[in-house]
Amino acid sequence: MTDLRKTVESFWAAAEARDWTAFADTLTEDVLYTLPQTRERIRGRERYVRFNREYPADWHLRIERIVAEAGQVVTWGHFTVGLEEMYGISFFTGDDSGRISAVVDFWPEPYVPPAGREHLVERY
Amino acid sequence: MTDLRKTVESFWAAAEARDWTAFADTLTEDVLYTLPQTRERIRGRERYVRFNREYPADWHLRIERIVAEAGQVVTWGHFTVGLEEMYGISFFTGDDSGRISAVVDFWPEPYVPPAGREHLVERY
Repeated sequence: MTDLRKTVESFWAAAEARDWTAFADTLTEDVLYTLPQTRERIRGRERYVRFNREYPADWHLRIERIVAEAGQVVTWGHFTVGLEEMYGISFFTGDDSGRISAVVDFWPEPYVPPAGREHLVERY
Repeated sequence: MTDLRKTVESFWAAAEARDWTAFADTLTEDVLYTLPQTRERIRGRERYVRFNREYPADWHLRIERIVAEAGQVVTWGHFTVGLEEMYGISFFTGDDSGRISAVVDFWPEPYVPPAGREHLVERY
């Protein structure tokens, strides 16, 4: 059994390298990908690999944080797409073989802080 | 030494109950709170408790997922504020005593999915 944390590291390394064979190897055949912000789902390895392969942007990734326990891993990634920078948070679930059976992604965007808390907060 | 996962469960239970004494008990004195989306930071237990106590909304929380390893915990929470629903992702770091020394929050908002991937995706 492969450690899910290692599988997730391979998943991101393969995605960054656009090595879609290695990427597919980290996934179960019936992997489920969910984007709660758009309420989108992609079912199955073939479609999910294709979604990533066809993704229309030259993005690059740096992993900021990884938190892992048995069967569950979370990554916080810092993505650059040209001059744009963004965060991506991914919740991974693994099966018994250490492959990824589910991914849930969140893509938080910058926003203007609400007024009224300036006395407690500093900006960076 | 308290398990950080237990501390984080107490943190959310105390916040939901508006029990600010119990909430403060989960934090180190120099706890650092960071909101990358607004580039805001709050330093220290006193200010961070006050920030939460003064937060101008009657929110309620259900924890959807928790992932924990030694010294690090992530929660994915589903928040309701009146009729509005939102997600909150929090990365916690603990100190040796099992208290929370850092929290990084992400608040992802709904967005309209980009065109061109309808052949791979279902909506839910």
